[in-house]
Amino acid sequence: MAEENIKRTDVNELGEFGLIEHLTQRFPLSNPSSVKGIGDDAAVIDNGNFQTVVSTDMLVEGIHFDLMYTPLKHLGYKSVVVNLSDIYAMNARPKQVTVSIALSNRFSVEALEELYDGIRAACNFYKVDLIGGDTTSSPKGLVISVTAIGQGEKGKLAYRNGAKVGDLICISGNLGAAYLGLQLLEREKQVYLSNPGVQPDLEGHDYLVGRQLKPEARGDLINAFGKVGLIPTSMIDISDGLASELFHICKQSGVGALLEESGVSIHPDAEVQAINFSMDPITCALSGGEDYELLFTVDPQDIDKVKYMPDIYIAGEIIPAEDGIKLNTKGGNLHDITAQGWKHFGNKN
Amino acid sequence: MAEENIKRTDVNELGEFGLIEHLTQRFPLSNPSSVKGIGDDAAVIDNGNFQTVVSTDMLVEGIHFDLMYTPLKHLGYKSVVVNLSDIYAMNARPKQVTVSIALSNRFSVEALEELYDGIRAACNFYKVDLIGGDTTSSPKGLVISVTAIGQGEKGKLAYRNGAKVGDLICISGNLGAAYLGLQLLEREKQVYLSNPGVQPDLEGHDYLVGRQLKPEARGDLINAFGKVGLIPTSMIDISDGLASELFHICKQSGVGALLEESGVSIHPDAEVQAINFSMDPITCALSGGEDYELLFTVDPQDIDKVKYMPDIYIAGEIIPAEDGIKLNTKGGNLHDITAQGWKHFGNKN
Repeated sequence: MAEENIKRTDVNELGEFGLIEHLTQRFPLSNPSSVKGIGDDAAVIDNGNFQTVVSTDMLVEGIHFDLMYTPLKHLGYKSVVVNLSDIYAMNARPKQVTVSIALSNRFSVEALEELYDGIRAACNFYKVDLIGGDTTSSPKGLVISVTAIGQGEKGKLAYRNGAKVGDLICISGNLGAAYLGLQLLEREKQVYLSNPGVQPDLEGHDYLVGRQLKPEARGDLINAFGKVGLIPTSMIDISDGLASELFHICKQSGVGALLEESGVSIHPDAEVQAINFSMDPITCALSGGEDYELLFTVDPQDIDKVKYMPDIYIAGEIIPAEDGIKLNTKGGNLHDITAQGWKHFGNKN
Repeated sequence: MAEENIKRTDVNELGEFGLIEHLTQRFPLSNPSSVKGIGDDAAVIDNGNFQTVVSTDMLVEGIHFDLMYTPLKHLGYKSVVVNLSDIYAMNARPKQVTVSIALSNRFSVEALEELYDGIRAACNFYKVDLIGGDTTSSPKGLVISVTAIGQGEKGKLAYRNGAKVGDLICISGNLGAAYLGLQLLEREKQVYLSNPGVQPDLEGHDYLVGRQLKPEARGDLINAFGKVGLIPTSMIDISDGLASELFHICKQSGVGALLEESGVSIHPDAEVQAINFSMDPITCALSGGEDYELLFTVDPQDIDKVKYMPDIYIAGEIIPAEDGIKLNTKGGNLHDITAQGWKHFGNKN
């Protein structure tokens, strides 16, 4: 077998981000139109008048989604939305998507129609066009790969590396709910598996389950920024959890961060459910992921532009790198925040 | 399970192209920049000065490649090349690629390095930049999804729907060799599986095996077209076999075709090997696929531009749709050509 070498380093030793960095470090950009390569929410291609922004994500059955509790229509919708979120996180607007799927023939045409109904719903809602893709078979399971293409104005894109000491840390919406929705779905799955006669009990959990199964991307905020003339100094979408995203911004900008727990919005349902699960709500917000909200920094002279913006929370300040990445709790204690990228290289097959 | 509906149509009933058409028929383009959507080698986005061309392909272990005889470096190279081929088939030039991979942890970091060495070799040779991607785990096997992005000049792109009655049918290079290379590799695999002590015997088959494992995309021809000012009236890359590609052009252009067997170039090694396998060489060329040559049509007044172009063969003429799609054999017999798209929805998992 070609992959059996003498030296064998397990991919887990590097972690997801380490692995990507390791594999792609010797790929310098050579074409003049390649403005930004690997390492941000999306790549940037210069087109003279404006810039083309490209992002791609792969969703794998058994890793990123579980069809036992994920309706295919929701899956189609979400697979588009998570990519649009990356385009918005560049302060750009998505225009097109390509969708490739590999599937085993356990899936019927009707099942695929459901998946594409969801893809269509997302395309309609976000006004993007499906322009291409590939459909192929797989020996096992379903894999969805989406590439989103957007447009941004020259000089107005927001990268991960522009945060400066003194900038305000801003977060849209509330965090942790998608993660708690997932925990609820997983709990009901386990109950069902050990006792198939029992019906899932998700009553009263619409909000949390909805945040997990049907996330939305914050294109509304990109429009709001445009209206008030705000260009964030840095921006990233919150797909892996606030802590992980804050680390990306700090690392790439060469800065530290002081995050105020009181500035991190958590939905009351999430608050209650976290406690029911014996978890700390702020931990769910920091490490949970999949909320697809935006984390961004703004120059302090732009404070009036965000202060009264609906659904935006000022949640701290960028500090010098040597001061670290800290959380100031509601109780007034300072804690180091640790990055929580997701590691999920689990199965040997 | 979400995919269990009352009505269940097997995806095989529609076939690959039928399935794509069925699923994507209700996706009209709405953004002004979306010039061309699904149904050609690549999608086209208008950028004012020039046009951005986007193509994407997914390669799945056990379906598109077999790691028993495919070195990972070659696989990386090929996964990029097959996408660049689609960009060239639009008469455009590739500039960037994104590469997403899903892999089980049977793959080591060293194995992935080999894969990326091949990706890098292709990027260097074709002068394209790797600008993004996604790396994730999979419960089983390896999936590679590549998106290629290129530039074309407005008014100079070659679509599948532009062939006119009287146009000359042209083919680059020789056909069938990649398919015969695959048959050789498959034969040696079977020998090895039934008797692991026996070493693979591929001696003397470098050309055929090379065409399968390390195909090249015909960017050289796009440059040659540019030099003589030729814009093909239609063009497609030969990934699924000449017959299938000719059907695409005829269907989309609303025409028929008269293909001359004598105009289809077949390498001597392919000729010999086809006969050894008791196959008709022209059948290998028509149905084999994976040669990544270009099939294109030119206006008869452009005949002088292609007549002496190296490695280009004039192989017939576009005729009215009602006259069908025919092969004129070397023996002077007329045969109907049937489309051979690949159907490979095999496993129920």
